[in-house]
Amino acid sequence: MEYYALPIAKLIEQLSKLPGIGKKTAQRLAFYILEMDPLEVEKLALSIKEAKEKIHYCKICCNLTESDICHICSDDKRDKSIICVVEGAKDIVAMEKTKEYKGLYHVLHGVISPMDNIGPNEIKVKELLNRRQNGQVKEVILATNPTVEGEATALYISKLLKPLGVKTTRIAHGIPVGGDLEYFDEVTLSKAMENRREI
Amino acid sequence: MEYYALPIAKLIEQLSKLPGIGKKTAQRLAFYILEMDPLEVEKLALSIKEAKEKIHYCKICCNLTESDICHICSDDKRDKSIICVVEGAKDIVAMEKTKEYKGLYHVLHGVISPMDNIGPNEIKVKELLNRRQNGQVKEVILATNPTVEGEATALYISKLLKPLGVKTTRIAHGIPVGGDLEYFDEVTLSKAMENRREI
Repeated sequence: MEYYALPIAKLIEQLSKLPGIGKKTAQRLAFYILEMDPLEVEKLALSIKEAKEKIHYCKICCNLTESDICHICSDDKRDKSIICVVEGAKDIVAMEKTKEYKGLYHVLHGVISPMDNIGPNEIKVKELLNRRQNGQVKEVILATNPTVEGEATALYISKLLKPLGVKTTRIAHGIPVGGDLEYFDEVTLSKAMENRREI
Repeated sequence: MEYYALPIAKLIEQLSKLPGIGKKTAQRLAFYILEMDPLEVEKLALSIKEAKEKIHYCKICCNLTESDICHICSDDKRDKSIICVVEGAKDIVAMEKTKEYKGLYHVLHGVISPMDNIGPNEIKVKELLNRRQNGQVKEVILATNPTVEGEATALYISKLLKPLGVKTTRIAHGIPVGGDLEYFDEVTLSKAMENRREI
């Protein structure tokens, strides 16, 4: 670190804390920032600060939003009887891009993972159960990722919801469109066979 | 962009202006920043602002520094008769890591590139010529990158310095240590042959 002036060393250190940004990339970014237009740098620093200050969880679905209630929950045109449960706010973006789904969402902000000391109380499960109380909810789609933790979380939530008379479904697992059979693992392939449907 | 709250969209836009960071990476970084500890976010934003505000060019060698004169120029132990000319401040870091070179540096902050409208006046050539005036400088090592622009810039500077009686040298080009002959291009190989030395 002795090679850099202190403010540069600090900047490199902070940048390298971001995911996927190692020492080398952080250094490249730091030197790029130092050569940038001062106004642009100001805008970058401000956008980081403002996003963190202004963005908080939607009071209903825990999506990231600037207002009290996010634009999806406050949209009257959306089907309020279906809730799609996802791990993170960016999953909503991916889902919305399909323009197919018209129901509501619920963001868990994580998955149950005993190895990392994350239990049901550390993620937004309680908030999901509370949403059922107005009686509007007919179906909960569990769209957590098909990882061990994602599957366990989906199973956990479905076990909580079923006794309450809410239909719980899980998104389908199989071969992605455009995928090549020979490159998929056995679990994906057997899931694809298991969930086959008549055409 | 309609999928994100405005502060998130702004943050993604600013992040994607950085080199090597596309839309997808910017989105990942933005969501990571939103989940980060507020104190850490504050530190990140501040380090960007401070680095830009505090860092400027060394009055002698144009290196990036917090003080008037950089730590290399103000180091009495360094050999003031040799100047190594590099394209950017990060080249100094690379060179310093070798712990071999004990002379001074000069940062051009770019290379002559007529295609990008960068002439000798847009880079720190004049500042380099001014440094020769105290008569201490005996040798100028041209360590610009071995690109077309880097070579042209080295040639241009050597033509300015030679009539002034300053010895100008160019760093060696050849096969990097650990490199494999079969993977190098013809130009590198012929340079390596041309610059062979007796052992």
